[in-house]
Amino acid sequence: MKFVQHHVLPWRLLALPAQARSFCSTSRRLEIRHVSELPSRTKPSYIQSPSNTLLSLQWPSPPRNVLITKKKRTPNITESVVEFTTHIRSTYPSINVILEPESAEELHEQLPFPVYTYHRGDGVPQHLSDRTDLVCTLGGDGTLLRASSLFSHVASVPPVLSFAMGTLGFLGEFKFQEYKRAFREVYMSGAPDTYSTLSDSMGANPPTLPTSPDDPLDRPLSYADIRGKAMGSNRTARILLRNRLKVGVFGPDGKRIGGGDGDTYALNEVTLHRGSSPHLKIIDVYINNRFLTEAVADGMIISSPTGSTAYSLSSGGSIVHPLVSSICLTPICPRSLSFRPLVLPAETPITLRLGKKNRGREVEVSIDGNTITEKLGTGMEVRIGGNEIRRDARGWEGGVPSIVRGTNGKEDMAEDHWVGGLNALLKFNYPFGDQEP
Amino acid sequence: MKFVQHHVLPWRLLALPAQARSFCSTSRRLEIRHVSELPSRTKPSYIQSPSNTLLSLQWPSPPRNVLITKKKRTPNITESVVEFTTHIRSTYPSINVILEPESAEELHEQLPFPVYTYHRGDGVPQHLSDRTDLVCTLGGDGTLLRASSLFSHVASVPPVLSFAMGTLGFLGEFKFQEYKRAFREVYMSGAPDTYSTLSDSMGANPPTLPTSPDDPLDRPLSYADIRGKAMGSNRTARILLRNRLKVGVFGPDGKRIGGGDGDTYALNEVTLHRGSSPHLKIIDVYINNRFLTEAVADGMIISSPTGSTAYSLSSGGSIVHPLVSSICLTPICPRSLSFRPLVLPAETPITLRLGKKNRGREVEVSIDGNTITEKLGTGMEVRIGGNEIRRDARGWEGGVPSIVRGTNGKEDMAEDHWVGGLNALLKFNYPFGDQEP
Amino acid sequence: MKFVQHHVLPWRLLALPAQARSFCSTSRRLEIRHVSELPSRTKPSYIQSPSNTLLSLQWPSPPRNVLITKKKRTPNITESVVEFTTHIRSTYPSINVILEPESAEELHEQLPFPVYTYHRGDGVPQHLSDRTDLVCTLGGDGTLLRASSLFSHVASVPPVLSFAMGTLGFLGEFKFQEYKRAFREVYMSGAPDTYSTLSDSMGANPPTLPTSPDDPLDRPLSYADIRGKAMGSNRTARILLRNRLKVGVFGPDGKRIGGGDGDTYALNEVTLHRGSSPHLKIIDVYINNRFLTEAVADGMIISSPTGSTAYSLSSGGSIVHPLVSSICLTPICPRSLSFRPLVLPAETPITLRLGKKNRGREVEVSIDGNTITEKLGTGMEVRIGGNEIRRDARGWEGGVPSIVRGTNGKEDMAEDHWVGGLNALLKFNYPFGDQEP
Amino acid sequence: MKFVQHHVLPWRLLALPAQARSFCSTSRRLEIRHVSELPSRTKPSYIQSPSNTLLSLQWPSPPRNVLITKKKRTPNITESVVEFTTHIRSTYPSINVILEPESAEELHEQLPFPVYTYHRGDGVPQHLSDRTDLVCTLGGDGTLLRASSLFSHVASVPPVLSFAMGTLGFLGEFKFQEYKRAFREVYMSGAPDTYSTLSDSMGANPPTLPTSPDDPLDRPLSYADIRGKAMGSNRTARILLRNRLKVGVFGPDGKRIGGGDGDTYALNEVTLHRGSSPHLKIIDVYINNRFLTEAVADGMIISSPTGSTAYSLSSGGSIVHPLVSSICLTPICPRSLSFRPLVLPAETPITLRLGKKNRGREVEVSIDGNTITEKLGTGMEVRIGGNEIRRDARGWEGGVPSIVRGTNGKEDMAEDHWVGGLNALLKFNYPFGDQEP
Ligand SMILES: NC(=O)C1=CN([C@@H]2O[C@H](COP(=O)(O)OP(=O)(O)OC[C@H]3O[C@@H](n4cnc5c(N)ncnc54)[C@H](O)[C@@H]3O)[C@@H](O)[C@H]2O)C=CC1
Ligand SMILES: NC(=O)C1=CN([C@@H]2O[C@H](COP(=O)(O)OP(=O)(O)OC[C@H]3O[C@@H](n4cnc5c(N)ncnc54)[C@H](O)[C@@H]3O)[C@@H](O)[C@H]2O)C=CC1
Ligand SMILES: NC(=O)C1=CN([C@@H]2O[C@H](COP(=O)(O)OP(=O)(O)OC[C@H]3O[C@@H](n4cnc5c(N)ncnc54)[C@H](O)[C@@H]3O)[C@@H](O)[C@H]2O)C=CC1
Ligand SMILES: NC(=O)C1=CN([C@@H]2O[C@H](COP(=O)(O)OP(=O)(O)OC[C@H]3O[C@@H](n4cnc5c(N)ncnc54)[C@H](O)[C@@H]3O)[C@@H](O)[C@H]2O)C=CC1
Repeated sequence: MKFVQHHVLPWRLLALPAQARSFCSTSRRLEIRHVSELPSRTKPSYIQSPSNTLLSLQWPSPPRNVLITKKKRTPNITESVVEFTTHIRSTYPSINVILEPESAEELHEQLPFPVYTYHRGDGVPQHLSDRTDLVCTLGGDGTLLRASSLFSHVASVPPVLSFAMGTLGFLGEFKFQEYKRAFREVYMSGAPDTYSTLSDSMGANPPTLPTSPDDPLDRPLSYADIRGKAMGSNRTARILLRNRLKVGVFGPDGKRIGGGDGDTYALNEVTLHRGSSPHLKIIDVYINNRFLTEAVADGMIISSPTGSTAYSLSSGGSIVHPLVSSICLTPICPRSLSFRPLVLPAETPITLRLGKKNRGREVEVSIDGNTITEKLGTGMEVRIGGNEIRRDARGWEGGVPSIVRGTNGKEDMAEDHWVGGLNALLKFNYPFGDQEP
Repeated sequence: MKFVQHHVLPWRLLALPAQARSFCSTSRRLEIRHVSELPSRTKPSYIQSPSNTLLSLQWPSPPRNVLITKKKRTPNITESVVEFTTHIRSTYPSINVILEPESAEELHEQLPFPVYTYHRGDGVPQHLSDRTDLVCTLGGDGTLLRASSLFSHVASVPPVLSFAMGTLGFLGEFKFQEYKRAFREVYMSGAPDTYSTLSDSMGANPPTLPTSPDDPLDRPLSYADIRGKAMGSNRTARILLRNRLKVGVFGPDGKRIGGGDGDTYALNEVTLHRGSSPHLKIIDVYINNRFLTEAVADGMIISSPTGSTAYSLSSGGSIVHPLVSSICLTPICPRSLSFRPLVLPAETPITLRLGKKNRGREVEVSIDGNTITEKLGTGMEVRIGGNEIRRDARGWEGGVPSIVRGTNGKEDMAEDHWVGGLNALLKFNYPFGDQEP
Repeated sequence: MKFVQHHVLPWRLLALPAQARSFCSTSRRLEIRHVSELPSRTKPSYIQSPSNTLLSLQWPSPPRNVLITKKKRTPNITESVVEFTTHIRSTYPSINVILEPESAEELHEQLPFPVYTYHRGDGVPQHLSDRTDLVCTLGGDGTLLRASSLFSHVASVPPVLSFAMGTLGFLGEFKFQEYKRAFREVYMSGAPDTYSTLSDSMGANPPTLPTSPDDPLDRPLSYADIRGKAMGSNRTARILLRNRLKVGVFGPDGKRIGGGDGDTYALNEVTLHRGSSPHLKIIDVYINNRFLTEAVADGMIISSPTGSTAYSLSSGGSIVHPLVSSICLTPICPRSLSFRPLVLPAETPITLRLGKKNRGREVEVSIDGNTITEKLGTGMEVRIGGNEIRRDARGWEGGVPSIVRGTNGKEDMAEDHWVGGLNALLKFNYPFGDQEP
Repeated sequence: MKFVQHHVLPWRLLALPAQARSFCSTSRRLEIRHVSELPSRTKPSYIQSPSNTLLSLQWPSPPRNVLITKKKRTPNITESVVEFTTHIRSTYPSINVILEPESAEELHEQLPFPVYTYHRGDGVPQHLSDRTDLVCTLGGDGTLLRASSLFSHVASVPPVLSFAMGTLGFLGEFKFQEYKRAFREVYMSGAPDTYSTLSDSMGANPPTLPTSPDDPLDRPLSYADIRGKAMGSNRTARILLRNRLKVGVFGPDGKRIGGGDGDTYALNEVTLHRGSSPHLKIIDVYINNRFLTEAVADGMIISSPTGSTAYSLSSGGSIVHPLVSSICLTPICPRSLSFRPLVLPAETPITLRLGKKNRGREVEVSIDGNTITEKLGTGMEVRIGGNEIRRDARGWEGGVPSIVRGTNGKEDMAEDHWVGGLNALLKFNYPFGDQEP
């Protein structure tokens, strides 16, 4: 029995696996289980079509393990999570719901089925990425960023379906009202048509739990099990692979700092910043292992195209479409009149090093708005590698596969969400005049 | 008979003064008269109060000669001009209406009283500035700029009351719907209270024309003649003296170019621009007669604080409050990463010179959006002097005295218009988010 | 006899082909011949290597027809052209020198061999692109842009070797002093090693003219003919394929304007600008055939990454590395506080249309600094398609294949030129302080 | 005996006044005395001349008490301080040298005369501003800012003479090499000519110490005592009164926070910043006590024109000449595309308030690069009043009177230092091109 309850979290109900099973029969609904009990992950493929710059999501078999993350400390979002999980669980009974530890604790008593979770140990749990087929986020951009950070140490992130709650975010593609349709589209994406004609009763009869005596977790589901109309093979969900940045922090001796043996992935950006020191910092910037420039500034942002509309934009960067394979270098309040933001090829290796001139001054390093180290000192460096998206025989891989709105039949509308976001959210080129003062 | 009809304009009805008089008796309404027939100008003073950064308008006697300019080629503005002039003429019968030549021609048949105008000869007519007590503009910023250009060669501009028609402009302070109240406020501004208590009948009885057998034009009116309630001495109209720039164009020999023996005043800015030449221009910039920098750019803008929200803003300049005594230097598309806009003291003399490096390339010079010369060549220069506003024993003088909204009793609201304009018109710091995409 | 002398150019010596031949024997040096007499073009291929983001130039057989363009009206560049052509012609006797008509006229008397040229008829000559194997430019960025414009109607541009003369340009990679080595590197690029070991005598003996009785123009040369040491197969010249923009201008009826039946290619950018009209223009911007925004501005720039350091930079655009497959949209002096430059995928189709609101105002359209139409009026539109670079079985194609400095053995140095240009030419992030005031 | 030695500083030699006197006779050179022993301050006046925008420094009698501040931890500056103080003390024997506590401790043993200092108690010592006639700084901008902070609670700052050491600062006007001449100019500034003709021997004879048996500290010196040539009355030192900002921090209850009963003055700026919190802050901005906008940003800078070339510039602000009576409002990394820097009249009261939306998030407040509070929480506000410079019957007052270079006979050169700084230090509009890559 390798699984040991973590002492920090007061999970009265997170039993050891064996106990959980037995406990199960009496009071299933109050149960919190561990993700390691789940069947292993179903990986979709992402197929390119000549007519569209976005990719098609294609499940080999329906997704079963769905991680749901939500914005914290917002009561009405909690209600929505209950509604949402209840819906997907009753409509697609073979689905298993994974929640973050806090949410599991907060919600499991309201949910008439077991929820799965993990321990927030030191670092991000490997278990989670081994089991999660699909991620759904309910909140804003911050919630999506947090969800993405749960996979910041793994190369293969499950597809992410985001719902904006109240405040629209720039990255959240769907409105919560659309959740039934949106989830269905994603769930069925890539299902063969034959199945879809067979199973045509959804909506009329309430779905029943799987009757198989075997634990349904033990076998992969086929689309034939699904009570509902499939979407047709060309009604697949559209995927935007959002490139991430690979980030490593190294000491003056060239050794990796901060534990772990691998890089961390950033969805928006990695930022070096003076933090609460009121003084300018001096950061040497290398691209392709060659010296580019010495930034004397509050800090530096290295962002993905996705992050170009986040902090980089506030610091004067250009807006870069997420499909432009690139990496952006934007200074924060540089003490120079001539430091213009740069857009480099996504593959460019970038190193930011704290030179000797800083004389003991330190900077803070953050990834996607989380400070990872507060003390980057002289001689230390952050190394960033851009392009993690790659194409091989089986299709595309890497990045955060984000499900994008606007598919059904209107293939060419697929990119609307970005332009829509520019205009509606960023108030891009907002017109002058006319309103009453 | 000193007045000679100008040959260019086909004014069938602009009779010689003598004829005009006789014609008068039969068909007054069809008449166009010449401004030189008007009594000479009544100049107000502008008084500073300790509690307010704006000045108070104080007429020695009521204004009589009112110039009205309107946006061109906009039918519904024409109607508004008829309504407006009819109102002021019937409420304040001693007022004489001056129109620009085209408007006079277009409107005089609809107006039941004579209108005055001038000849658009070469240059701006001196007559006009000698007779105009008050300017009213109906249109947008462009209309106000055009009105101001009628006084671009004189040091003392009459106060300007602007009405925004439809499209709100940044400089137009009043909505047309407010015209009765706004005009009254300006008209009565500075009138002593004693008069105001005497004359209390306005609104009830229709005003009658002055009964004096003498032409009322021959004597200054007193406020006792006015049928209406005065505003009280502390309900004066508030004036913002908008600083102008003095602009002169000089040849390589140091001689003034473009005729005239004096400078031209700009309200927004003077611009040097490559125009339709597709090449960069090289402009040497001198401040305080000392070399500052060589601008390699599309052009240069030297603007007043008023103009800081016009072309200069589009070119990346800061927004400067009109009460900051300053002059702004903003490059247009400079071929330099380090050319930041400058804000200099209003008194700073600035010279823009076309250096030898341009090898025959020429630039265009515009003032407030009107091209004054298309061919500024090598060795030629534009000299700009900033501060024309001065204070002497009698109070403040110079600039374009703009009547500003929001006085009655709420003295401290007086500056609202600028902040209001920033937010409502320029969409300054327009908030992100939340609207439906 | 299909070839007719063009009446505009006073080419006394541009004889008809037949005559030229006969004339040849007596006074070869004074001859100007027509490019159509040249053997047809040798197309190189561009090979990708895993270790380098730049491509390798690979000639199937040595280039023979070399077009040389030079900066105009600059006497010392003329001398350099004489030196350069004399060198390549004597070292590589099978090379034929093509000059632009003016240069041919100006120089042919100083050159001890025939020069080839074309007629500057209406539009860019097809002949030229059918014969030119390699382009060499002597001048600055403007000279390279002019050379590129000679191929602005063809899909396949010959490789371009640029020499900076005096003023370094941002696009000109080589210094003129390096011309022998640089040309040799390009000439030999991709030559098999076996040949190189055979022919080892260059430098010692003066090269002799080909002695074959047959006109050497009639057969492709092999590297065995070359007297000189080859560079080794991994010492190939490095190629940066600079993406161009495909530009078409269309009337309100959707018909192509401006003659020709095809698009024009831009290397830097296509610009719409108010030109000498002093008023704002209103340009509707569509991307992916969907409305993006209405630009109220002096104009709009659509630029390639190469052009991101040209006009777009002056207008506030980001600096985009030429290897980022993208297209930049930068407004010129927009009347909006919130119009930030955009970087879009290179494939994005963009349409700029003059909407009805302009009421008769027109804009000028320029490509790479040349005005192509001065009167784009209401309802007319410019359509831009970005990515012309494509990869097929034979390798890469499209764009302007620019030969880039810094190869020999130091493969990874290959991108230096861009970073070098940023720092040395654009004064990117130029450090503050320290110098004497 | 009111003066008590401060326990923190290990001043072995800072004796009580009585002891100091007696100690004096034996070993004057090792002595540290307290500033309260000095004669009270001599205040100069600042006279405006019609021909110059700068003011003339006019001492009623020669300055005696000179505070010298130096950059910390920089050995060669320490040497320069020794050289400088030794020079002024021997040339102008009635001068008393005041040092900061650390410098006094470090240097007094190397100086052949007593030095005066103060206790760094809680807050800035009132004693210091009551005694200091003149401040000299040796270092960079940071040193001047620190010197200015010693007077950040008093309305009347002594004139400041700054020497740049090594690294030129933007605010440091003189090179150290010029110190003899520069100090003399300041010392003699405003001395009547009669005296100057009398005392003509300086340079030839070494100056002798005053022979009067009375302590020279007890009587004001006249210029007749000075051995040296006066500068002539029109060779006065030129003064730029650098406006400061008055800053107060208030709690949600409207009570002043942070002790003290008065405002603090800032020379560059007051900054609100998120510090090491990685999240956006929401700051409500009021001008003239009316809501202007809600800044969602890293922070806000309110700067003087002097500070416009400091942090504000790095954050995208315009460069404002120090003689423009204004206050600049510049956001730091605002989450808005349309937040442009503002330049407001110097008198404008500005309030920055942390609104409820921040939900517990706090910001840091700094003045001139020193954090004054790390925890500005919800409901708290910073109030800034701009213009402290005023003119009354006796001349100009307020601000930091900065001695500016470039006077002798070339009056009109006086403003050079600012333009010089722009070009040499800020690399304003640094030209493109030409250098070798
Ligand atoms: N001055 C600024 O603009 C700052 C921005 N940030 C950004 O905040 C992110 C972290 O987000 P939160 O934890 O929610 O912090 P937060 O509470 O500070 O909010 C960040 C804001 O940025 C928006 N945002 C996040 N990612 C975006 C994207 N890719 N495109 C457009 N908008 C985006 C969010 O909707 C939210 O409005 C960081 O990755 C960083 O990009 C962080 C600090 C300062
Ligand atoms: N790219 C740009 O932003 C350009 C701006 N202009 C400006 O246009 C002015 C001439 O106006 P029009 O004849 O109406 O030309 P126009 O038809 O080109 O319109 C200029 C626009 O600027 C606005 N405007 C004018 N003065 C302003 C001010 N002081 N503050 C804020 N907004 C202001 C007007 O409301 C109008 O929207 C010039 O003085 C110049 O400042 C002229 C050419 C280009
Ligand atoms: N305000 C501005 O910055 C303007 C720029 N231009 C640019 O000039 C180009 C035409 O060049 P010329 O005929 O020589 O005109 P020109 O004589 O106006 O000079 C243009 C300048 O831009 C530089 N340049 C050209 N292409 C560049 C590139 N890709 N990257 C960096 N620098 C570059 C040249 O070296 C030269 O200094 C146009 O394609 C346009 O990009 C044209 C008009 C105005
Ligand atoms: N990102 C930035 O640009 C930041 C700037 N600062 C500035 O630093 C000042 C404090 O100075 P230090 O203690 O020396 O800090 P520091 O060591 O961070 O250096 C600040 C730099 O600003 C320069 N500077 C200071 N005042 C200036 C002025 N009025 N005009 C032009 N340059 C000026 C100094 O020469 C120095 O190069 C603050 O008042 C603030 O203005 C502070 C933090 C960040």
